[in-house]
This record gives sequence, C-alpha cells and structure tokens, in this order.
Amino acid sequence: MSTISIIGSGNMATAIGTRAANHGHTIEFMSRNTAKAQALADEIGNGATVGTFGAKPSGDIVVLAVLYAGAVDVITQYGEALAGKTVVDISNPFNADASGLVTTPGNSAAQQIAAATPESTHVVKALNSIFGHVLAQGKPLDAFLAGDSAEAKARVTAFLESLDLRPLDAGGLAMAYALEWAGILLMGLARSGGGFDLALGAEAR
Amino acid sequence: MSTISIIGSGNMATAIGTRAANHGHTIEFMSRNTAKAQALADEIGNGATVGTFGAKPSGDIVVLAVLYAGAVDVITQYGEALAGKTVVDISNPFNADASGLVTTPGNSAAQQIAAATPESTHVVKALNSIFGHVLAQGKPLDAFLAGDSAEAKARVTAFLESLDLRPLDAGGLAMAYALEWAGILLMGLARSGGGFDLALGAEAR
Repeated sequence: MSTISIIGSGNMATAIGTRAANHGHTIEFMSRNTAKAQALADEIGNGATVGTFGAKPSGDIVVLAVLYAGAVDVITQYGEALAGKTVVDISNPFNADASGLVTTPGNSAAQQIAAATPESTHVVKALNSIFGHVLAQGKPLDAFLAGDSAEAKARVTAFLESLDLRPLDAGGLAMAYALEWAGILLMGLARSGGGFDLALGAEAR
Repeated sequence: MSTISIIGSGNMATAIGTRAANHGHTIEFMSRNTAKAQALADEIGNGATVGTFGAKPSGDIVVLAVLYAGAVDVITQYGEALAGKTVVDISNPFNADASGLVTTPGNSAAQQIAAATPESTHVVKALNSIFGHVLAQGKPLDAFLAGDSAEAKARVTAFLESLDLRPLDAGGLAMAYALEWAGILLMGLARSGGGFDLALGAEAR
C-alpha cells in the first residue's frame, strides 16, 4: 500500500479516493478548494491528508481528477513539481452533449497533458471509461489503460489491481484517443437502454 | 429463421454466414467471385445459395462484408436494388497499421455507406468490433450496434439474438464512429497482451 496523490475534490476524486482508501492506500488530496479537500480527507480516513495545490505531490502516482477543460492548466501550474511522477489522466474530453470528443486523433487529452509535463513525468490514461458511481460501488471491474512508459504502466497496473480492478493494457499513449471514444461508447450504451450501472470490459473467449 | 443476404465471400462473410446457418438461417452469398461464393454456400449448407452480385438481395437483412476501401463502391453498384433493405455495415476503416481510423467524426464508414444508399434503406453498424474467428467459435458474445432507424435496429437485434449474441444498442448512426474506434481498442488490447481471442463487452454492475 502506498500514498496516492489525487488532484481534485469532485466526484471522480471522491470515487477513486474512497476505493483506494478502502484498499489500504493513504490518499493525499490536492485541490484549490482546500475546505472541500479537507472534508473529503476526513470522510475517507485511513490517514488521508490535504496537500498544497501546485506543490510536489507525496505519492509516486498522481491521479489528475479535474475536468478536461482545466486539466492542462493545472498540469502547467504544477510544472516541475510533477518531475518523476506517474500522472494518471482520467479525463473525458466530451463535447456538450457527450455525443463525441473535443479532442482529435494524435492529440487526445492524455497526449495534451503529457506534452505539458516535465520530461521525467509519465502519463498513463486510465479509469476514464468507468462511471464514478460504479467505481465507488467497489465491485471488480475491467480497467483499460494506455501509456508509453512500461515502468509507469507497471506502477498503474499494480495500483489498479490493488483496487480489485483488472487492468487491460490497450497500448501506447496514442491509444488514449480510443479510450476517450470508449467513454462516449459507454455513454451511448447507457443512454440507449443499457442504464448507468454499465461497465465496459473485455474477455478472452 | 429467415434469409440473410451477405455481400462478400471473405473471412467475415464466412464467419457470419457459418454462425447464421448454424442457427437455422438460409444464407444468400453475393460476391464478384462467384466460384468462391458457391464453394462457401456448399460448405455452409442449410440451403445456402449464391445470388447475383448487384441484383436485388433475397434477404431483408443484407450484411455488407467487404473491405471498407470498396464498401461505398459496392453500395453504389447495388443502388436501387437495396431499396427497403436493412444493410448491416461491419467494416473497420482502419489505417495501415490499425492504430487509428481513416474516417472522421460525423463521417464514419457507416454514415458514408448510408449516404450512398436509397432513401428507403436503413444502415445499422454492428459486428465490426468482434474478431471473425471469435465470432466463428459460436460462443455467446456481446454485440454493439448503432443506427438511426428503430425498425431496422429491432430487425438486427432479433438477428443478433438468434445467433446467441447479446445486442447492446449504442445509439444513433453517428455512434458508429465510436464503434469504429472500439475496433481499434480491441486491436490495441489484443496486441498489448490481451491476445486475439479477446471480445469486448459491457455488463451492468
């Protein structure tokens, strides 16, 4: 078990933080809204703390749990504070009605975020195609991930496994764009009769 | 059980035709390669026939099982012969190394095909994100679909169910683009350790 830093204090920060704390990780919440982060840390327990937004995170894994619209700005504000860290991009760059993406092939949210980090930082896309409330339920789920650094992917893979998730490697960071479309696919299935308890997965048959 | 027309005589035509014949459907193969279509019909049995490429298909459901590169040309050649039919687009508009698509949002392969059909024809995207050899194994699988016509989707849904597949509606035909990316996601997962017996799916949790 290790320290996981989560930037953000919204729904996904809560869902990931709760699930990780339940599996023995110590969470550091970093948010511009320090009151909300403190309330969240108090609620989650297991030694959860509040870090200073923009300062060096305590965890080797830093989950970026802010809306896509602000994600690159936040990364830019952190700057060198993220040197050597593994940043997990969970963002969904949906258009207004979640019928498509505002990102383009080769310029996924994850790739934009990677371009804004120090050279020693590795970005892994993960957890974007799971509904927060489904993640919070705690059941086993499949979790797609994509990234260019084998070492960072191994770190995130171990983290996901520790949360009773089954990591499924989709390939290099360019595959983040396919994962961002998987978020749209999940929305489409949910809205078209599948319901919002739905989770994507893959099985060997 | 009904007559299903399949345009094509390649791997996917074989996989879908075999599975459908095994479940009691009568297959009409329509291919420019009539010798190959005849051999396929003979092999599959259950009254399978060979139709004339470009003529009016016997089935209400017409599975377009040709490569994306030639799909719109084939549809254009059929022209009014497809009036009133439900065309199932199974194409994967992959780029050369299957790392991305050659289609763009709002102009998916399915939407291009729909634009080339008569007004009374309805296009449903389905079966593109299942490996042909996995489909041929006959095991139960999830099958995403997308289309604008509720009637055509109901027809394809019943067909998929008859094949022991579980139809999962992703929404209107614009969602075909997300399904085309699901094909890339499946390739990425298969190549990154998942293996080529992998099948995508979705479960309520």
